[in-house]
Amino acid sequence: MRDFDETNITAAVIEQFEAATDPRLKQIMASLVRHLHDFVRDVEPTFEEWSFAIDFLTRTGQMCTDKRQEFILLSDTLGISMLVDAINHRMPEGATETTVLGPFYVEGPPELPLGADVSNGIADEPLLVEGTVSSSDGTPLGGAIVDMWQSDSDGYYDVQQQDLDGPLLRARFRTDAAGRFWFRSIMPAYYPIPHDGPVGQMLAATERHPNRPAHVHFMIAADGHETLITHVFAADSPYLDSDAVFGVKNSLITEFARRPAGLPIDRDHRHLAYDFGLKRLDGK
Amino acid sequence: MRDFDETNITAAVIEQFEAATDPRLKQIMASLVRHLHDFVRDVEPTFEEWSFAIDFLTRTGQMCTDKRQEFILLSDTLGISMLVDAINHRMPEGATETTVLGPFYVEGPPELPLGADVSNGIADEPLLVEGTVSSSDGTPLGGAIVDMWQSDSDGYYDVQQQDLDGPLLRARFRTDAAGRFWFRSIMPAYYPIPHDGPVGQMLAATERHPNRPAHVHFMIAADGHETLITHVFAADSPYLDSDAVFGVKNSLITEFARRPAGLPIDRDHRHLAYDFGLKRLDGK
Repeated sequence: MRDFDETNITAAVIEQFEAATDPRLKQIMASLVRHLHDFVRDVEPTFEEWSFAIDFLTRTGQMCTDKRQEFILLSDTLGISMLVDAINHRMPEGATETTVLGPFYVEGPPELPLGADVSNGIADEPLLVEGTVSSSDGTPLGGAIVDMWQSDSDGYYDVQQQDLDGPLLRARFRTDAAGRFWFRSIMPAYYPIPHDGPVGQMLAATERHPNRPAHVHFMIAADGHETLITHVFAADSPYLDSDAVFGVKNSLITEFARRPAGLPIDRDHRHLAYDFGLKRLDGK
Repeated sequence: MRDFDETNITAAVIEQFEAATDPRLKQIMASLVRHLHDFVRDVEPTFEEWSFAIDFLTRTGQMCTDKRQEFILLSDTLGISMLVDAINHRMPEGATETTVLGPFYVEGPPELPLGADVSNGIADEPLLVEGTVSSSDGTPLGGAIVDMWQSDSDGYYDVQQQDLDGPLLRARFRTDAAGRFWFRSIMPAYYPIPHDGPVGQMLAATERHPNRPAHVHFMIAADGHETLITHVFAADSPYLDSDAVFGVKNSLITEFARRPAGLPIDRDHRHLAYDFGLKRLDGK
C-alpha cells in the first residue's frame, strides 16, 4: 500500500474500509470516498483551494452553537436536505408533503392548551391557525403532538434574539378527540437564513440571495405514523419561486386569508387553515 | 422553482449557481452539488443518518483549535489530501515526490543555524540529518528555506503536549551556498494520528488503525521553484504498508542508518541523508 497516484488511490482507500463489520457503514464510506474522489478529480483543486475548503468547513463547525446550526444551513442551501427529504418521503395519497427541518427547531417546546397565544401578545398582525391531523386514509388522529415554530413579523426566530429570555413563537399542542388543533400567533415574515457566517459568504460569493418565503413550521407525531416535518407557506409571500433552501412545494402553499375583527380575535387578522395527513408506519 | 423531487433537484440547485460571476467558483459549486447529490442518491441516507452526518461535521469543526486540525485529519484519512497532492504534483524527473502536509505544521518555525539540535538535548536516540536541495536539473540551491518538523520518540508532536512551552522538534534552516543543510535531532517514532475526536471514532467504527510510519516532515522553498511539501520515512518503521493517511511513496523511504559514536555525535546514533529536488516554476 504505497505509491498511490490519482488513478489508484480511490480503490486503495475503499479497500481500507473493507474490514468494517457494519455493512451499512462500509457501504456509506465506500460511496463517500468514491464520490468525493470523483469530485476532486473533476475540479482538480489547487492546494490553496483545498486549504480554503478545510478552513471553510472548520469555520462552519465553529459557527455552530446550541442555537445555531451552520452545517444544516450548508446542507439546506446545497439542496442536500431536500434531497434527503425526498428520498425518505415517497408519500402515499392523502399524506402531507414534507420539507426541510431547518436549523431552528428546539427539542421540547413548551406545551400549551389549545387556543393559546404563542406570541405572548406581540402587537403585530394577528394570525389564527387551525387545522386537523388525520391518518392518510382520513381517520382523525386525536392526541397527536403538534409542534409549531415560526419567525416573528421581522423574520427572526426566538433563538436568534440575544435579549429574549425563553421560547417565543414555538409551542407544542395536542389535538382534541376529533384531531383538531388551533392557536393564536402573529404573521410570520419572509426572512434571510442567518448569513453572517460561512454559508452566507458562500451565498454572497455566488450571487445567491439568502431569503426564504414566509411560513410556519410544523412537526406532527402520532402513534403508528411517521412523524411529519413540514411547513405551510403563505401564498402572498415573496421568494416562493427562489427559496434559498429549495423547500417550497405547491401543496404546502395556502392563503393566510384576511379576516375582519370578530371572534376570537377582536382586530383585523389573518387565518391559516390546513389539514395534515400522516403516513402510516405500515406505509398505507 | 417549486416541487422538487429526487430527480430534478440537482439541476435546480446548480441553476442557482449560474449567476456566480467567478467562473472557477461556479464550476466548483456545480461539481460539488452534482457529486454530493449522486452520493446521497446512491446511499439513500435515512433522516437519522443525515442528522448523524451533520453532527459529525459539527464536532469535527469544533475539535479544531490553533493546535489541532480535525478536518485535515478527515481529508487525510479519506485519501483526499493525497489525491489533491497527486493532482497538483505531476513531477518532472529529478524532483522529489510530495506527500501530505498533515495537521501539525505551524507557520513561522524558529530559524536555527546549521548544525543546531532541534531536540533541546532530549536523551532519546540521536539522529543526524543532512541533505542537499537542488533544482530538478541538479543545480544546487543555496539560501533555500528548509522547514522541518517531526514527532518525538514517543510519537508526539510539540503541539500535542499541553505542558510544553514553545516549539520543539520543529525548525527552519537555510541551505549554505552549496545547497547543503544539516542538523541534530532524535529518532521520530511511528504514531497514531490524534484519534480522540470524530476522525478517531470514524476509524474505530470502521476497524481501521490510526497509525503512520515514522517520518520527518520537510517543507522546502526556494526562489523560482514550487515549494516542496514531503516526508522522509524510516525504512525500518512499522506501518509503511498501511499508513492511515495513504502518504507513503517508495522514493521517500530511506535507511536511517545506525552509526557508532563519533563526530559530531559522541553516542551511537542514526543518520538520515536525503537529497531533495525542487520543481522549477516553469515546470522543467
